[in-house]
Amino acid sequence: MHHPQAASRKSVAQSAAEILTRLRAQRPRVHCITNTVAQNLTANALLAVGCVPSMTLSMEEVDSFVSGAQALLVNLGTFDRERREAMTIAVEAARSNTLPWVLDPVFVDRVPTRAAFARELIGRRPAVIRLNHAEFSTLAGGKPLCDAVVTYARISQTVVGLSGESDLVSDGEQTVSVANGHPLMARVTAMGCAGSALVAACLSIESDALLATAAALLMINVAGELAAENSAGPGSFAVSIIDALYNLEGPVLIARAKVS
Amino acid sequence: MHHPQAASRKSVAQSAAEILTRLRAQRPRVHCITNTVAQNLTANALLAVGCVPSMTLSMEEVDSFVSGAQALLVNLGTFDRERREAMTIAVEAARSNTLPWVLDPVFVDRVPTRAAFARELIGRRPAVIRLNHAEFSTLAGGKPLCDAVVTYARISQTVVGLSGESDLVSDGEQTVSVANGHPLMARVTAMGCAGSALVAACLSIESDALLATAAALLMINVAGELAAENSAGPGSFAVSIIDALYNLEGPVLIARAKVS
Amino acid sequence: MHHPQAASRKSVAQSAAEILTRLRAQRPRVHCITNTVAQNLTANALLAVGCVPSMTLSMEEVDSFVSGAQALLVNLGTFDRERREAMTIAVEAARSNTLPWVLDPVFVDRVPTRAAFARELIGRRPAVIRLNHAEFSTLAGGKPLCDAVVTYARISQTVVGLSGESDLVSDGEQTVSVANGHPLMARVTAMGCAGSALVAACLSIESDALLATAAALLMINVAGELAAENSAGPGSFAVSIIDALYNLEGPVLIARAKVS
Repeated sequence: MHHPQAASRKSVAQSAAEILTRLRAQRPRVHCITNTVAQNLTANALLAVGCVPSMTLSMEEVDSFVSGAQALLVNLGTFDRERREAMTIAVEAARSNTLPWVLDPVFVDRVPTRAAFARELIGRRPAVIRLNHAEFSTLAGGKPLCDAVVTYARISQTVVGLSGESDLVSDGEQTVSVANGHPLMARVTAMGCAGSALVAACLSIESDALLATAAALLMINVAGELAAENSAGPGSFAVSIIDALYNLEGPVLIARAKVS
Repeated sequence: MHHPQAASRKSVAQSAAEILTRLRAQRPRVHCITNTVAQNLTANALLAVGCVPSMTLSMEEVDSFVSGAQALLVNLGTFDRERREAMTIAVEAARSNTLPWVLDPVFVDRVPTRAAFARELIGRRPAVIRLNHAEFSTLAGGKPLCDAVVTYARISQTVVGLSGESDLVSDGEQTVSVANGHPLMARVTAMGCAGSALVAACLSIESDALLATAAALLMINVAGELAAENSAGPGSFAVSIIDALYNLEGPVLIARAKVS
Repeated sequence: MHHPQAASRKSVAQSAAEILTRLRAQRPRVHCITNTVAQNLTANALLAVGCVPSMTLSMEEVDSFVSGAQALLVNLGTFDRERREAMTIAVEAARSNTLPWVLDPVFVDRVPTRAAFARELIGRRPAVIRLNHAEFSTLAGGKPLCDAVVTYARISQTVVGLSGESDLVSDGEQTVSVANGHPLMARVTAMGCAGSALVAACLSIESDALLATAAALLMINVAGELAAENSAGPGSFAVSIIDALYNLEGPVLIARAKVS
C-alpha cells in the first residue's frame, strides 16, 4: 500500500494542499477511540478540515461505526476497562475492512502494562504510529534519533510520526522532516491527539501513509503558527488553531512549509 | 400537558423571550446524560441561559439527581454499558416524578442496535425528540418532509424537533418552522446536543412542549447568527455562541425570529 | 507537615508569587481523577501554570500514574463504577507515597451516598478539601460560617478551602480570606474543579497546605479578574482565564491580592 517513491515524486507540501482539498470535498468519516480529555478538540479539528467524526465506545456498536468509517484512530490517553476492549474490537473491524488505522500510544512511558498493550496493538499493524520522544524511547528501547526511527519503522512495518521540535516521519525507507509548529502547541492539552486524528483523516483519502502523515503534521503545525499570531496565550491559541485549520489554504501551506 | 392552541395565542418569538426571562429568574436544574464529547459545551450552554446542569452517570446516584431536577436530557452520542443503564434509570425517575425529558437519538442511522434502543426509549414517551434528517429517516422510516414529521409526532405522542436548514417543530397537530441559524453550527461538535439541552431547559419551566421546543431552537439559532458575526471560524464560533446565549435579549430574539 | 506560622511569616500574596515561579520551573506532575465535564479545562489550567497533568482511570494504571506524580486531585463531579474504584486506589497510592492529595466533593449535597463516600475519603486524610457552601453544609452539618470552617478543619485534620464571594481557607488554627474573583467564574462549568486542580499543583511544591491552598485560590481568582476584562461573556471568559493563568506575573498577583 506504500509508494516509497511518492514523496520524491512531488513535494510533500504540494501533496498536503491537494489532500486538504480532497478532505473538504469527500468529507470522510473518521472513528476515534480517544481519551475523554481530547474528545472535544479532536472532534472540532476533524470537523474543521471537513471530516465527520464519531467517538462511541460501546462494544456492540464500535464494529458498525468503524466498518462505516474511512479511517480509525486509537489513542491510549485515558484508559478504562471498556475503552480497552473497544480498542481491540475497533482494530479488528479496521483490519477486516482493510481500513487504515493510527495508533497514538499516549503515556506508554508511564506504565509498563500500557506499553505492553501498545506493543500488542502495534503487532496488529497500524498504518501509522504517532508519538513523542518519551513514548518512542519506551517502545523502541532507544533514543529517538533519526536512525532509530527509520529502523523502528522498518521493523514494525509501519510509518512512524515522531513529534518534537521538528516532526520526523519515516516508513523505514523514506524519511521526511517537518519543522513547522509553535511552542504553544505543547501548552494545550490534546494537541498531539488532534494531530493524530488528522493523520487518520489524511489516511482515509491518501493511500501513501508516509505522505498522509507528513501532510497531516504539516497542516496542524502551520495552523499552529497562524494561531499563535492571533493568540494571547494557550486558551485563545486552542480556539484559534481550530479557526486556522478551517481557513487553511493550500498556497499558505505550501508557502510556509519547512519540509525536508 | 400540551396546549395545542398556545402557539397561535401569541407569537412563538414573544414566548421565547418570556421563557428566557423565566429561565434566568428561576435557574432550573437540568440533568443531562449526554456524550463525553458534548458535556462541556452543553454545561456551558445551560449555564449561559441561567440553568444549573448536572451530568453524573452513576447508577446509584442518577435517580436522586433526576428526582431533584426540573428536566432531563438523554443523548445517545457516545455509548457505553453504564451510560445505557443510567439512561434507563434516569427515564424511569423522570416518569415517576412526572418530569419532562428530551431524547436526542444521535447517530441512530449508524447502528441498528442503537436505533432499537432509541425506539424503546421513545415508547416511554419523551416530551420531545430532537434529531436531524438522517436520524429521523431511520426512526420514522421515511423522508423528513413536513407531513412525515407531523405524522410521526402524532403516532409517537411526542413533540418532534427536526434540525435542518430550517428547524421544524411539530406535536402532531400544530407545526412551527424556525428558519434562523448559521452554517458554522454544523461545523462545531455538540452544537445539536447543546440545542437539545436547551429544549430540556425550556421544558422545565414551560409546559407547552411545542412552544418550549421552538423557543429553545430559536434561542440557539439566533445566538448562532450573532456568534457568526464575531467569529473567524468554528473555534471562535463555539466560544462566541456561549457569549451570545449569555447576552441574549428578548427584543433581539423577537426582532431576528424567522418563525412561521 | 503544616507550619501554622508560615502565613504570618510572610504575606500570602508574596508566597503565591514564589509558588507560581517554582511551578513553572519545576513542572510537577499532577494526576487528576476528575469528572469528564471538567477534564479539558482542568488539564489546560494545569498546563497554563507549568504542570504536567494526567487523567487516566484504569485500575491497573492509576497506581503507577499516582506514584509517579507529585500531587493528586480527586473530584467527585461525575461518577461511575470504575471512577469510584479508581479513586480509592489513587488515594491509597498517594498515602503510601506520602503524596499530598486534594478532595473536591462536588455535589455531595445532592445524594446521600455521595456524601457518605466523601466522608469515607475524608477519613483517609486529604491535605485539602476544596468545596462550596452547599457542599460544606452537607459534610459539616452546619452553616459555612468562619467558626464552623475552622472547627471542621480542626476536627478533620485537614485544610478547608471554601469557595464563595470571598474564599476562606483554614487549617483549624490559622484562617486566610481571599476576596478576589469575578461573578463570571460561577457561570462557566468546571471553574471550581480547575481551582481544586491548582490547589493540588501548589501542594506538590509547597508543604504548607494552608499557604498552598490560599496561593492557588488567589491565582485563579486574580486570573478571573483579568479574564473578565477581556471577555464578552462566559464563553470568552473560559478562554481568557487560561491565557491569564499562563501570563500571570508575581507582581500582578501581589498588587491585586485582597487577602486578609
